[in-house]
Amino acid sequence: MRFLVEIAIDLPPGLSTEERGRLAAAELERGRELRSASVIVSIWRVPGAPLRNVGVWEAPGATELHDLISSLPMFPYMRTNVTALADHPLDR
Amino acid sequence: MRFLVEIAIDLPPGLSTEERGRLAAAELERGRELRSASVIVSIWRVPGAPLRNVGVWEAPGATELHDLISSLPMFPYMRTNVTALADHPLDR
Amino acid sequence: MRFLVEIAIDLPPGLSTEERGRLAAAELERGRELRSASVIVSIWRVPGAPLRNVGVWEAPGATELHDLISSLPMFPYMRTNVTALADHPLDR
Amino acid sequence: MRFLVEIAIDLPPGLSTEERGRLAAAELERGRELRSASVIVSIWRVPGAPLRNVGVWEAPGATELHDLISSLPMFPYMRTNVTALADHPLDR
Amino acid sequence: MRFLVEIAIDLPPGLSTEERGRLAAAELERGRELRSASVIVSIWRVPGAPLRNVGVWEAPGATELHDLISSLPMFPYMRTNVTALADHPLDR
Amino acid sequence: MRFLVEIAIDLPPGLSTEERGRLAAAELERGRELRSASVIVSIWRVPGAPLRNVGVWEAPGATELHDLISSLPMFPYMRTNVTALADHPLDR
Amino acid sequence: MRFLVEIAIDLPPGLSTEERGRLAAAELERGRELRSASVIVSIWRVPGAPLRNVGVWEAPGATELHDLISSLPMFPYMRTNVTALADHPLDR
Amino acid sequence: MRFLVEIAIDLPPGLSTEERGRLAAAELERGRELRSASVIVSIWRVPGAPLRNVGVWEAPGATELHDLISSLPMFPYMRTNVTALADHPLDR
Amino acid sequence: MRFLVEIAIDLPPGLSTEERGRLAAAELERGRELRSASVIVSIWRVPGAPLRNVGVWEAPGATELHDLISSLPMFPYMRTNVTALADHPLDR
Amino acid sequence: MRFLVEIAIDLPPGLSTEERGRLAAAELERGRELRSASVIVSIWRVPGAPLRNVGVWEAPGATELHDLISSLPMFPYMRTNVTALADHPLDR
Repeated sequence: MRFLVEIAIDLPPGLSTEERGRLAAAELERGRELRSASVIVSIWRVPGAPLRNVGVWEAPGATELHDLISSLPMFPYMRTNVTALADHPLDR
Repeated sequence: MRFLVEIAIDLPPGLSTEERGRLAAAELERGRELRSASVIVSIWRVPGAPLRNVGVWEAPGATELHDLISSLPMFPYMRTNVTALADHPLDR
Repeated sequence: MRFLVEIAIDLPPGLSTEERGRLAAAELERGRELRSASVIVSIWRVPGAPLRNVGVWEAPGATELHDLISSLPMFPYMRTNVTALADHPLDR
Repeated sequence: MRFLVEIAIDLPPGLSTEERGRLAAAELERGRELRSASVIVSIWRVPGAPLRNVGVWEAPGATELHDLISSLPMFPYMRTNVTALADHPLDR
Repeated sequence: MRFLVEIAIDLPPGLSTEERGRLAAAELERGRELRSASVIVSIWRVPGAPLRNVGVWEAPGATELHDLISSLPMFPYMRTNVTALADHPLDR
Repeated sequence: MRFLVEIAIDLPPGLSTEERGRLAAAELERGRELRSASVIVSIWRVPGAPLRNVGVWEAPGATELHDLISSLPMFPYMRTNVTALADHPLDR
Repeated sequence: MRFLVEIAIDLPPGLSTEERGRLAAAELERGRELRSASVIVSIWRVPGAPLRNVGVWEAPGATELHDLISSLPMFPYMRTNVTALADHPLDR
Repeated sequence: MRFLVEIAIDLPPGLSTEERGRLAAAELERGRELRSASVIVSIWRVPGAPLRNVGVWEAPGATELHDLISSLPMFPYMRTNVTALADHPLDR
Repeated sequence: MRFLVEIAIDLPPGLSTEERGRLAAAELERGRELRSASVIVSIWRVPGAPLRNVGVWEAPGATELHDLISSLPMFPYMRTNVTALADHPLDR
Repeated sequence: MRFLVEIAIDLPPGLSTEERGRLAAAELERGRELRSASVIVSIWRVPGAPLRNVGVWEAPGATELHDLISSLPMFPYMRTNVTALADHPLDR
């Protein structure tokens, strides 16, 4: 099943540059794993905003989707909007 | 899989009292079928509003959920908000 | 009487990992008590968000509901939206 | 139990002046009954708007409140916002 | 003249438990004075939220109302929404 | 007492050009009376919008303000936002 | 260049069932053309709503995208939200 | 002085195709006049929406701007948002 | 030219009581200058809120208005909403 | 391709006056480069707000636009809203 997942990340102001770097590297690595496992089917940046993206995710259901999103290192700092997607007649 | 489904219905002003009555009867009948099939797991009225309800629906996925909701006779007049629900740790 | 209760929790950034752990454990324990007392009739996670849930609560009235919600350890950090629920004709 | 009830009424443009007059008279009469039965505990106009009011209603629960509000003749044309009210420490 | 006053309070995260306690006690005391002087005509908690209330206040005008609300110790931390109330035909 | 009054008018599409003209003339005439009686203390157009204005009104209270606004011929088609104004320290 | 395109369609209440059918057939046919030309890269229904979809479109720029969307027969009845999409680091 | 002017037009459903055509032609003609007089300094379509544009207008003040916008034939059907623009340090 | 200026001020929590006092005194002094220079034509408090006001300002244009508002000592902490005002037919 | 870019900047409260000064100088310098390279085609201040601007940017696509905006030193503190702009018939 497909989900439209919009993610905006607000890192806490207290983080040091080092911690931000480490977090960004870990986020990218975990993102790559989800991408090559085709969990993240497609993903784009919302242009102009520091840390906002919109993507199409594949998961058996909402519970599994939650576990997959929450496996991202920046999860504690995310505001997320999830829309379950239904097949469109053009694809049936 | 469970979905939180919020439905608000705006019947067009041009409908005659008869047509409204027929539509309401058909809606109730189809609702009963979905209720006894446990597709509509639970449903409540949002108090004070003519035609607004909130319910928990069960469907294999978003595509099937769409087909089930669109089987309701008042579907063309609905504004609907769907939230896919994930299991809570209290229930795991 | 039933209430739809939507809860979003924003823990203050200054909390140590230890304090968060202790708070999470206490929250889960109090949640289990409310769940087995059938105060929390059903509860789900809103997927993708760190600490957001939606549930159906049972309480004699709004005053008792407030006392029950405020008995949760994370209460000071909650933004909550409560909708009093009326019986739906399908259940009458 | 007390509820804060905000009501905004949009009469359909097709109503004749006569029908509006009849509807307004019926609304006032039913309002008076609810007022003297202390169902409507207090009620005010939101100033400057054609048909908007805010009131405190008394009802055993949300189901009864819905039945009481829907007994008003202008109910089909209402947008309503209901907030269940809990006792305040100043009144305990 | 009557006003509908909705108050939401966000205490700053840096306050110690002691300071919060002192502030809460002072708030309750000043609230009691306003209540027994019939400035606060009625007041309820919005259920489920840490510090939100809705009340009906009596004051000669908006300037006096501002002075009365700002006499509350938690005033610096309030977001407030005020609606001037007009008499309803049911009460004329 | 002063009120900030924002008015947006949506004339029903069914009105003939004649009826619109008559209504506009009557609105202007009643507006002039309220203006020279210093009920409307000041008034401006919100630029670019067909029928939107913002003004400062003087009335003893919200009930009188409602009666004054509702004396305008276009009142049935208004969406209005009223803010009761308190004296500013710069004017005390 | 990719665009996230959210479309909600409100057909006017005056349309006959026949006209709606003809319009729906024409919309589907034009949609198929855009789909097989890979202008519509992917498309889903937002579940539960009569005529809402979200899709990823490919066009050289915003001007061409506008021309493509406006080639759909239901275009006059659309509310549309377009987000230009930037490549995500996971895809670079 | 410059203004950012966002315009969305909702033509009434009752207009015939002929009337729409005449109105569109008149709108384009008046637009061309404003464009060559450098009143409309620049203008773009918001892509995907039937009749939405955003432009930069030049006018001595808000009163003149209102007169210029209201000289457009579709003015009665416009919702408009105007932002007065101040010089940016990059241009001083 | 006239502008409707709505200002809400959020002082940072870290300010000491002394700094707040100094800032408030400086704000009042600069406000008095703008008031007696008839830059601030009229100003009111939005009642019940710590630091919110609405006023009518006079300035040759938006650039000068920006410079005048930014001359207030609390400017760095302001959220401001500016509406350029056009003359109303009642005043022409 | 043109984009309407609205930028609001919230500097973290912890920044020293020196750091703010350095950041502002660097922002202005990078802004000048983008301005003379005609990447920023036009830009204005939204009057009355500390750090808000609206501008028209030129970039081959959304990916390049993102890289250009993120080259500004204050990028980490920006909330940005981007609208891809389509040619208007007046300019074709």
